Amino acid sequence: MADQQITLTLPDGSEREYSSGVTGLEVAQSIAAGLARAALSITVNGDIRDLDRPITEDAEIAINTWDSEEGKYTFWHSSAHLLAEAIQELYPEAKFGIGPPIENGFYYDIDFGDEQVTQEDLPKIEKKFIEKARQKSEFERRNVSKEEALSHYEDKGNEYKVDLIKDLEDGNITFYTQGDFTDLCRGPHIPNTGDVKAVKLTSLAGAYWRGDSEGKQLTRIYGISFPKQKMLNEHLERIEEAKKRDHRKLGKELGIYMIDKMVGSGLPLWLPNGTLMRRTLEAFLRDEQKNRGYQEVITPHIANIELYKTSGHYPYYKDSQFNPMEVDEEEYMLKPMNCPHHHRIYSNDLRSYRDLPLRLAEFGTVYRYEQSGELSGLSRVRGFTQDDAHIYCTHDQLKQEIKNVIELTQLVFNTFGMPVDIRLSYRDENEKKYGGNTEYWDRAQQEIREVADEMELDYTVAPGEASFYGPKIDFIIRDAIGRKWQLGTVQVDYVMPERFDLTYVGSDNEKHRPVIIHRAPFGSMERFMSILIEHFAGDFPLWLAPEQVRILPISDDQIPYANELKESFENIDVRVSVDGRSEQIGGKIRDAETSKIPIMLIVGSNEVEDGTVSVRRHKHGDIGTFKFSEFISDVHEEIKTKALPKNQD
Amino acid sequence: MADQQITLTLPDGSEREYSSGVTGLEVAQSIAAGLARAALSITVNGDIRDLDRPITEDAEIAINTWDSEEGKYTFWHSSAHLLAEAIQELYPEAKFGIGPPIENGFYYDIDFGDEQVTQEDLPKIEKKFIEKARQKSEFERRNVSKEEALSHYEDKGNEYKVDLIKDLEDGNITFYTQGDFTDLCRGPHIPNTGDVKAVKLTSLAGAYWRGDSEGKQLTRIYGISFPKQKMLNEHLERIEEAKKRDHRKLGKELGIYMIDKMVGSGLPLWLPNGTLMRRTLEAFLRDEQKNRGYQEVITPHIANIELYKTSGHYPYYKDSQFNPMEVDEEEYMLKPMNCPHHHRIYSNDLRSYRDLPLRLAEFGTVYRYEQSGELSGLSRVRGFTQDDAHIYCTHDQLKQEIKNVIELTQLVFNTFGMPVDIRLSYRDENEKKYGGNTEYWDRAQQEIREVADEMELDYTVAPGEASFYGPKIDFIIRDAIGRKWQLGTVQVDYVMPERFDLTYVGSDNEKHRPVIIHRAPFGSMERFMSILIEHFAGDFPLWLAPEQVRILPISDDQIPYANELKESFENIDVRVSVDGRSEQIGGKIRDAETSKIPIMLIVGSNEVEDGTVSVRRHKHGDIGTFKFSEFISDVHEEIKTKALPKNQD
Repeated sequence: MADQQITLTLPDGSEREYSSGVTGLEVAQSIAAGLARAALSITVNGDIRDLDRPITEDAEIAINTWDSEEGKYTFWHSSAHLLAEAIQELYPEAKFGIGPPIENGFYYDIDFGDEQVTQEDLPKIEKKFIEKARQKSEFERRNVSKEEALSHYEDKGNEYKVDLIKDLEDGNITFYTQGDFTDLCRGPHIPNTGDVKAVKLTSLAGAYWRGDSEGKQLTRIYGISFPKQKMLNEHLERIEEAKKRDHRKLGKELGIYMIDKMVGSGLPLWLPNGTLMRRTLEAFLRDEQKNRGYQEVITPHIANIELYKTSGHYPYYKDSQFNPMEVDEEEYMLKPMNCPHHHRIYSNDLRSYRDLPLRLAEFGTVYRYEQSGELSGLSRVRGFTQDDAHIYCTHDQLKQEIKNVIELTQLVFNTFGMPVDIRLSYRDENEKKYGGNTEYWDRAQQEIREVADEMELDYTVAPGEASFYGPKIDFIIRDAIGRKWQLGTVQVDYVMPERFDLTYVGSDNEKHRPVIIHRAPFGSMERFMSILIEHFAGDFPLWLAPEQVRILPISDDQIPYANELKESFENIDVRVSVDGRSEQIGGKIRDAETSKIPIMLIVGSNEVEDGTVSVRRHKHGDIGTFKFSEFISDVHEEIKTKALPKNQD
Repeated sequence: MADQQITLTLPDGSEREYSSGVTGLEVAQSIAAGLARAALSITVNGDIRDLDRPITEDAEIAINTWDSEEGKYTFWHSSAHLLAEAIQELYPEAKFGIGPPIENGFYYDIDFGDEQVTQEDLPKIEKKFIEKARQKSEFERRNVSKEEALSHYEDKGNEYKVDLIKDLEDGNITFYTQGDFTDLCRGPHIPNTGDVKAVKLTSLAGAYWRGDSEGKQLTRIYGISFPKQKMLNEHLERIEEAKKRDHRKLGKELGIYMIDKMVGSGLPLWLPNGTLMRRTLEAFLRDEQKNRGYQEVITPHIANIELYKTSGHYPYYKDSQFNPMEVDEEEYMLKPMNCPHHHRIYSNDLRSYRDLPLRLAEFGTVYRYEQSGELSGLSRVRGFTQDDAHIYCTHDQLKQEIKNVIELTQLVFNTFGMPVDIRLSYRDENEKKYGGNTEYWDRAQQEIREVADEMELDYTVAPGEASFYGPKIDFIIRDAIGRKWQLGTVQVDYVMPERFDLTYVGSDNEKHRPVIIHRAPFGSMERFMSILIEHFAGDFPLWLAPEQVRILPISDDQIPYANELKESFENIDVRVSVDGRSEQIGGKIRDAETSKIPIMLIVGSNEVEDGTVSVRRHKHGDIGTFKFSEFISDVHEEIKTKALPKNQD
């Protein structure tokens, strides 16, 4: 038999010829020695595999390293096995359930029998984990028959694995062994445990076997591991930093919002400082929208359920909606989205091509039911306000309108100093769940890509991420500590115009269908506020800070001067207060710093005499003494230009 | 038996002595001949009576003329009898049901047998009515026994009156006769039919006997009558004027709001023009509130039902609330009022006397169930936004805070040129429905009156008009055509602080209860908007008009100049547009007048050359040509000062 050749296509589109049976590791070596050293697994036609398995057919492949999601997935999967190996040695009676990789690390569910394992035991397990990793054991894969697999675990008395194997198909069962530990597993794994250099077991929780609350409760140990100790250190610092920035902690400290059990879970109440910030954000966007020809509307928070049946939202959102209320023998429900309301406003008038684009905007509060376990501060709530808008335009206007929306969205995130990644979210061609005909879909997807290319945007394409009525452009921002958040979204919709029978009279005097763009740069005021708090760690830019300036008289003698300054600030709409308490100046400064007031003006007898202010900036300390008339115009300028805080570290 | 003397106390507090048995008419004559001529009935110790009945004991009395509610009530009651007298002559087979006076006139329910009586017959009946009135018949009162009363109507075959008499107590039954007509009636009546000089039968409707939809349907004829023909003419003009101003008609024409069956009855959607006006009103009030130390908050539109049970609102509003929704095995409902949410915000922090007064304001949308038959445009809806605020203060601060709130409320109505009547709404001492102890009630009622006196307000006192948790100050405004509307309300509340266990730490380091003021100058944005539309007949003051200025170029040549002017206006936040259509200038002016744009600027080649504008004011026509630079500063001033429109007739 002649040596058979296969063609492998790399992610960059280049093709390479190999002998059939070549392994992933060999392919990596053929590309670069460094790549081979970093390789953790290989993706073959979408399937992630061990590096030592032979490839026997033409395929699209990618070598997975730590830098890819797939590489991390493999790495953390193997780390779960290392955790089990360590525990097997420390607790020989332990029986193992399942141990998968997750978004940030891995876990293993373990039945420790009579043994009490607590948080305090984790360092000991970590130590054993690293000891095992350093043995540089290879992961060995082995096909086993169902009978052999069952008898293996029956001998060990592990009812969990037996339970799992019963559901598997004979011929498709594999064991992986590294060192002294063997596990039922479909893989893949990294070549060698030696790649795992650092681990942190983060927490320990109860977990019912197969999620059945009637069943046995196992102990779930969570962990995260890294190929370098330095990475773990950075990760722990990031967590520490994220904890400090947690919007639930800062939101309370800064008087931004509260959650009250008596009002209800997931229903934040905006406190005065939060409301000021929200109104400032709304004014910012309202202003930008006014300049771009948007018109604001206000619609009710409930509607007849028929409205959402007409829109087709009803079946899609059924599980995340509140129960309907009966009104006059009809069913009404809390508004889960604003779109259908705006479509009805569109239909309220005969529209001509001269009226288009019609851009209807609303800060519209919607309500969606979320499981109580999913709720978290301002980021996962049951009621939130979208900075929603719908643009009704002709097909010829679509591309220009998309450009305008992208430009606005970019302006918004630039204003907050948030870098943006752009994703074109297309439909999954193998799925049937999408509305509208495929011709429109193809057209919309193509137009979105054309716009992105014409604007020279850097973007990725994600099939399967579209909404049910059309493709989207998603904006994924990165915050100050590198975390990613999907925010603003722009959606093209050819479906709702059909469902709501929306028309306009063209210049040909015929009726035509408009196309709709759905968009929301912030997404939700609640979630955006949670991200802003964490992004700025509560040290907001001056224009956004609820209290912008606090004037601190050194003694009561300077209170009249302080009040004069206050009035000058108020005349130019600066949010200002005077701390007129009979406290030491040190105490006043401390309180202002704790409240993260951006500008503190200390005024004593010298300042009164000279018409000056001694300025202290939050986190920067004293920055000098200035003529008040000059200083106030600097403040005005800083607010007007929405300047970002200067680097504070 | 010596002539017995009685003392009668007049409304101004003065006392007069009379012989026992004096009649109301004699009392009126003793005061002034004019009063005797105008007298229609007399109120004796709260009981309205005929003028010819003897008074035999000391009493508080008032002579009722057309200028009092009681006088009108008597006048219209007698008019109902005149209507029946006229119909008896025209339709001898007619059988009469009931015929009472109502808020604006009177009606009579009549069984016309086989006769078809329609709208067309009303003029004929009016004519006969006046003919009967001119006979100057006196109303004669006669006590009848139940037996006599029954046999009278059994003879006539009038089962309706028989039905009524059966429910009456023997010894308390009276007949009144004027001319040829006798009616079962407890009175009172005017002395003489000659006082009724003018009548208008306004409409005709079906009415079930005793409201029972299973029973017989009678014909209800509505009418209104006056002591002078001129008054009727003015009344008809007012009705015509009110029709022209109907906010449901203007609201649609001016693009202010829409009601959409698919969204739901009673749930207005604010269109772009309405939203602009609402935002302008909100900004006006927000600004005034900011200057007075209010802090804005935002609370969710649903809450756990327990919140309203805690507040005690639940049983009071049960029938006007939407059905609850089940969430996580608890009941949630649409927020019927904002108060409890604000109380929870108050409780969120430990409050010290230094934090008080704490003034929490919210443009809070609430939902209340109203019968579908009660719904009307923006004035009766199922969801509305209150300009709500709650002021938490110490007892010592209460009076000053009430003063501040009254001052703000008066400022608001002055801004719209609406005269205000003030009513102190007290509890009804015979009713048990009120919360809290009577000591607090008495104190609050006294404090309200003290404030009103100190501010030298002109007020009336209305027992029984309080809310369940405290007395109120109600503001009743009069619109441009003289109609009265109850708007802003200020309520003092000692009950909620107890129910929500609200406290503050006093300067004595002890816990104390604050007292709460509830207030809402506009009341509801929806209802206030409906009143504004009708008050101004859509010709809004410049600062409030959704589109303030429209620039009308005579030809395309002036479009660049028009756009320059537009930009200048936009720079000072004037809402402006350019009508750049290729239309005749006459057509452009007509469209702008129809849309009630306050200022139209006509620009032709002369204006471009001279840097001027030819100004047209809505309803005033051309007012001349002005240098643009001067004109724009006048516009700015007019907006800034919130000037009212000049008299337009």
